[in-house]
Amino acid sequence: MPEVVVYAVAGRTPEQKRGLMKDITDAVVKNLGVSPEVVVVSIVETAKTDKARGGIPFSER
Amino acid sequence: MPEVVVYAVAGRTPEQKRGLMKDITDAVVKNLGVSPEVVVVSIVETAKTDKARGGIPFSER
Amino acid sequence: MPEVVVYAVAGRTPEQKRGLMKDITDAVVKNLGVSPEVVVVSIVETAKTDKARGGIPFSER
Amino acid sequence: MPEVVVYAVAGRTPEQKRGLMKDITDAVVKNLGVSPEVVVVSIVETAKTDKARGGIPFSER
Amino acid sequence: MPEVVVYAVAGRTPEQKRGLMKDITDAVVKNLGVSPEVVVVSIVETAKTDKARGGIPFSER
Amino acid sequence: MPEVVVYAVAGRTPEQKRGLMKDITDAVVKNLGVSPEVVVVSIVETAKTDKARGGIPFSER
Repeated sequence: MPEVVVYAVAGRTPEQKRGLMKDITDAVVKNLGVSPEVVVVSIVETAKTDKARGGIPFSER
Repeated sequence: MPEVVVYAVAGRTPEQKRGLMKDITDAVVKNLGVSPEVVVVSIVETAKTDKARGGIPFSER
Repeated sequence: MPEVVVYAVAGRTPEQKRGLMKDITDAVVKNLGVSPEVVVVSIVETAKTDKARGGIPFSER
Repeated sequence: MPEVVVYAVAGRTPEQKRGLMKDITDAVVKNLGVSPEVVVVSIVETAKTDKARGGIPFSER
Repeated sequence: MPEVVVYAVAGRTPEQKRGLMKDITDAVVKNLGVSPEVVVVSIVETAKTDKARGGIPFSER
Repeated sequence: MPEVVVYAVAGRTPEQKRGLMKDITDAVVKNLGVSPEVVVVSIVETAKTDKARGGIPFSER
């Protein structure tokens, strides 16, 4: 029931993403007391050209 | 004016997505009493490796 | 598994919101062929002062 | 047609929010070449207790 | 740099939310190898009347 | 600290996107009085088949 969306730049490995989704799910289960089966985590990746900090794309940082 | 974002795993056909966006638009128009032209629906697709339920990626479920 | 987020200005009745969430759920079930129990719809309401079209807040339109 | 969502902690004045939405709209119009009337900006505010950087809520930073 | 948004029904205690944000931050740092100071977590709460699973509001489940 | 997400159809040039992210960052800095380094902007692009206004995909408008 909590849905989690992670906005990240592309380029992580499937292992990193699997680990991230598993650990976030565990964090939700532990703190909110819900069943793991109702926790959905989505990673929304953007190209490094499509994300910026301080106005500078991550492709140029 | 209502903006709708659908977070889904990739793999649906264009026909499925067109039908989904049409029916969601109709649902908004019917229930909120707005003009269809102000209703925007976006489908944000993620790879099955990038989405998990219960901590398990949809690529492995 | 598809999660739907609706960004709307505040002010709708509970009946309108219930109807909207029901009809969007039906639209997802019909078009994507999933079970209703995996479809979650959230309405994220913002005050009319916090949403704008054409740069003009809805509180002033 | 571009929809912009700003996730911010609560506490800004209506004037700040109006100015922000106006300037973001102008930025979209200028860079993407669309009509202002298709640009929608929503500010999604969260309480300082509900947002964290570095794992520390903004209410405690 | 990864931004995390958690969509949850309202009603959790500040302690639950602080713990959740801390643990999600740790999950991001551990799996993606980033500094905690670039990780922002926002909890977007919705009233139980404004969120549904299976088309049924959480206020009625 | 404010995180900005722009939902747009794909097809803009890197120059357009860089300019958009820069100008949105400036708008946040100017109106909210924060340091540029805490402002993150993400552009979430969707294919024209995956986004609709008035129930009609942008690929058919």
